[in-house]
Amino acid sequence: MAFTEIGYQVTDRVATVTLRRPERLNAFTLTMRAELIEAFDRADADDDVRAVVVTGAGRAFCAGADLSGGGDTFGHRGDPGDPGEPGEPGERRELVNGAPRDGGGTVALRIARSLKPVIGAINGPAVGVGITMTLPMDVRLASDTARFGFVFARRGIVAEAASSWFLPRIVGIAQAMEWAATGRIFPASEALEGRLVSRVYPADELLPAAYALAREIAENTSAVSVAAVRRLMWSGLSAASPWEAHAADSRLMTELGGAPDAVEGVTAFLEKRPARFPMTVSQDLPPGVPSWPDDPYGV
Amino acid sequence: MAFTEIGYQVTDRVATVTLRRPERLNAFTLTMRAELIEAFDRADADDDVRAVVVTGAGRAFCAGADLSGGGDTFGHRGDPGDPGEPGEPGERRELVNGAPRDGGGTVALRIARSLKPVIGAINGPAVGVGITMTLPMDVRLASDTARFGFVFARRGIVAEAASSWFLPRIVGIAQAMEWAATGRIFPASEALEGRLVSRVYPADELLPAAYALAREIAENTSAVSVAAVRRLMWSGLSAASPWEAHAADSRLMTELGGAPDAVEGVTAFLEKRPARFPMTVSQDLPPGVPSWPDDPYGV
Amino acid sequence: MAFTEIGYQVTDRVATVTLRRPERLNAFTLTMRAELIEAFDRADADDDVRAVVVTGAGRAFCAGADLSGGGDTFGHRGDPGDPGEPGEPGERRELVNGAPRDGGGTVALRIARSLKPVIGAINGPAVGVGITMTLPMDVRLASDTARFGFVFARRGIVAEAASSWFLPRIVGIAQAMEWAATGRIFPASEALEGRLVSRVYPADELLPAAYALAREIAENTSAVSVAAVRRLMWSGLSAASPWEAHAADSRLMTELGGAPDAVEGVTAFLEKRPARFPMTVSQDLPPGVPSWPDDPYGV
Repeated sequence: MAFTEIGYQVTDRVATVTLRRPERLNAFTLTMRAELIEAFDRADADDDVRAVVVTGAGRAFCAGADLSGGGDTFGHRGDPGDPGEPGEPGERRELVNGAPRDGGGTVALRIARSLKPVIGAINGPAVGVGITMTLPMDVRLASDTARFGFVFARRGIVAEAASSWFLPRIVGIAQAMEWAATGRIFPASEALEGRLVSRVYPADELLPAAYALAREIAENTSAVSVAAVRRLMWSGLSAASPWEAHAADSRLMTELGGAPDAVEGVTAFLEKRPARFPMTVSQDLPPGVPSWPDDPYGV
Repeated sequence: MAFTEIGYQVTDRVATVTLRRPERLNAFTLTMRAELIEAFDRADADDDVRAVVVTGAGRAFCAGADLSGGGDTFGHRGDPGDPGEPGEPGERRELVNGAPRDGGGTVALRIARSLKPVIGAINGPAVGVGITMTLPMDVRLASDTARFGFVFARRGIVAEAASSWFLPRIVGIAQAMEWAATGRIFPASEALEGRLVSRVYPADELLPAAYALAREIAENTSAVSVAAVRRLMWSGLSAASPWEAHAADSRLMTELGGAPDAVEGVTAFLEKRPARFPMTVSQDLPPGVPSWPDDPYGV
Repeated sequence: MAFTEIGYQVTDRVATVTLRRPERLNAFTLTMRAELIEAFDRADADDDVRAVVVTGAGRAFCAGADLSGGGDTFGHRGDPGDPGEPGEPGERRELVNGAPRDGGGTVALRIARSLKPVIGAINGPAVGVGITMTLPMDVRLASDTARFGFVFARRGIVAEAASSWFLPRIVGIAQAMEWAATGRIFPASEALEGRLVSRVYPADELLPAAYALAREIAENTSAVSVAAVRRLMWSGLSAASPWEAHAADSRLMTELGGAPDAVEGVTAFLEKRPARFPMTVSQDLPPGVPSWPDDPYGV
């Protein structure tokens, strides 16, 4: 697949995914949806990628769904079996419980399953699906020029992309409901105060900060450990009790405790030198790494 | 039902529920319990109500259970089949697992099910059930004269009103346990720092701030969207995984995406004019709106 | 059991558990694991203990697993039936799903089940299991000399001690993932900002602050109430919905509402005098107090 609405580039062990429809403020389309899923598939399969940075081309991060279809934008789903045309606004056509799937949700759940840590570098307006797609990312950093809006109730629809699961767990239910019930547009300072983003930077310092964080991961850690920890933490947030978590991490400690990365990690620490971890995500992920539910809807 | 211990008034599309036993610092009784549940039933059924503000008459919000029954207050439940007398202190008599239900919990769970967003305007002391009843509200605002206390362990009982579910999800388990284990009374500043309340105001600015937030909702959003989002978010906080949330919001996006409010919402946005949403909660709530569990205890 | 790697002392109704291998920065061993579990058993059984303070001897809190076994430290588990030698580094040998159990997790889950509130007084470096073991404590206070690190990915292993359940619920998933994916060592200020600890003190004020909090609990509350509330809150964080919490606290309000501590608590409040609660945890814990799952792994 050649990407037309996103950029994908790997440099210094970091993949950058760039939403790239700057003339439309990077508004979300069916094509962008498919390309984002493909980009995360590539990043997971490429051992040279230790982290993923997601940002937007031009002055916006993502203005939300492309509304060029007019008033029928969110109703425009056509035949559920119709794969849609490239560039067509709207949503993907798979069925869930007999109804079409929410397209933003398919991206969000793909990101949630990522084996590489994901850093959102929110460089400008992030509205609707433009912000909900970032919720399964691990860390959100923002430019002081960013603005945010969970505007769904102002458009007559609902917060999507599984944001009803992610958002109250990230910012708390009171903050989630205030933003969702008002649909207000708010500045980076309010996003920071409400803990939607971890840090805010002057515009020209945003990407350097995102890459510095990505490098901090790439230069110091085992890729297999990070993949396993990412799945442990996100599935731990979903686990019914700490006993489930104990079962999962007991198994992983056993599988990884005597493996080459652990031997190297401890040895390097004792020798006060940087570790050179030999294991790879593509070859050495242990079976105990938890998975989110396999996609029950057949994509 | 004519209310005797609360006030209920609808102005400018906002219902105000006022705890009204100022001579008793609005202490909670069996009558108040029943009237609060009735008030939320009315607000849900009235399409002219877009949001609910809850506050207290006089200098207190709610001093907790009325202790005029003396040392036996919390043991005073009589015959489980006895409906109780109006004004009688104590708790409602339904059974749960063979035991009487906690009265504060029946109010809290009714508020959790509200179809309208609920704003707590905590104007003074909010202690015991006086604070736990506010936890299922969407946003809590406080006067700088408010004081708070999860005082249950100082009275020999336990935190009720399902607060063991709500409180650690709102303020985190460390803050929840510090307040619950000490039973301390704390000022508005500590409530703000601990994220129990979203903002603190000088006393005379509290109600204006609550109404401004209510109007921000009423003037900009679809009532059906807000009702659906409120249920999505609160049940999302209860959902086992984001896949459940994805199923729920895929269904709602399908049900609402082509409906009149979405057509109007998108069209008005594109035409840069305020939206006039035609749908109503009483008539047009789609079947995909999640419900909390129906009351399994038969009230 | 005579303790060799921890101290255990009860003064003024507060038990102090001191990690005591100062020459090894209190690094965690199999012996320390067993002694910690025994210490919490003692504290739960002793009605003279109203709260537990956990701290470290010397300049560290706990430097993590003892790595003196070298590169094979985390792989060194020997025969699963082997109880291990006192002082031996490594992990406990019970099986979970056929694999050895994570040793830190057995401590963490024991603390989670404590009937007494637990205050972590983190006096210095707390790294690896040195910090994850504190997550099921109710409140973490820190010295400004403390440093923290979820360093697992730098050693080629994964975050353990059920931290994938606890950590994202305490600090949020974004902060949890940033610390877990980088494995960075961070100062007390970052721990405070990220809400890993509730407050930071100059080194010589840390223990006094911990004891002041413990005394605030001991002097004002019913021991039975606090035990019941602790279990309610932590299991409430695990409960599927607020209806489960309502069932649990309805039952406890019934069991405790007419019991001697409630009669004394309300009466003392009305008489404006300190309460003298007659009930004890060892004798009077009501059957409705929720338990975490019994240990399904047979320790």
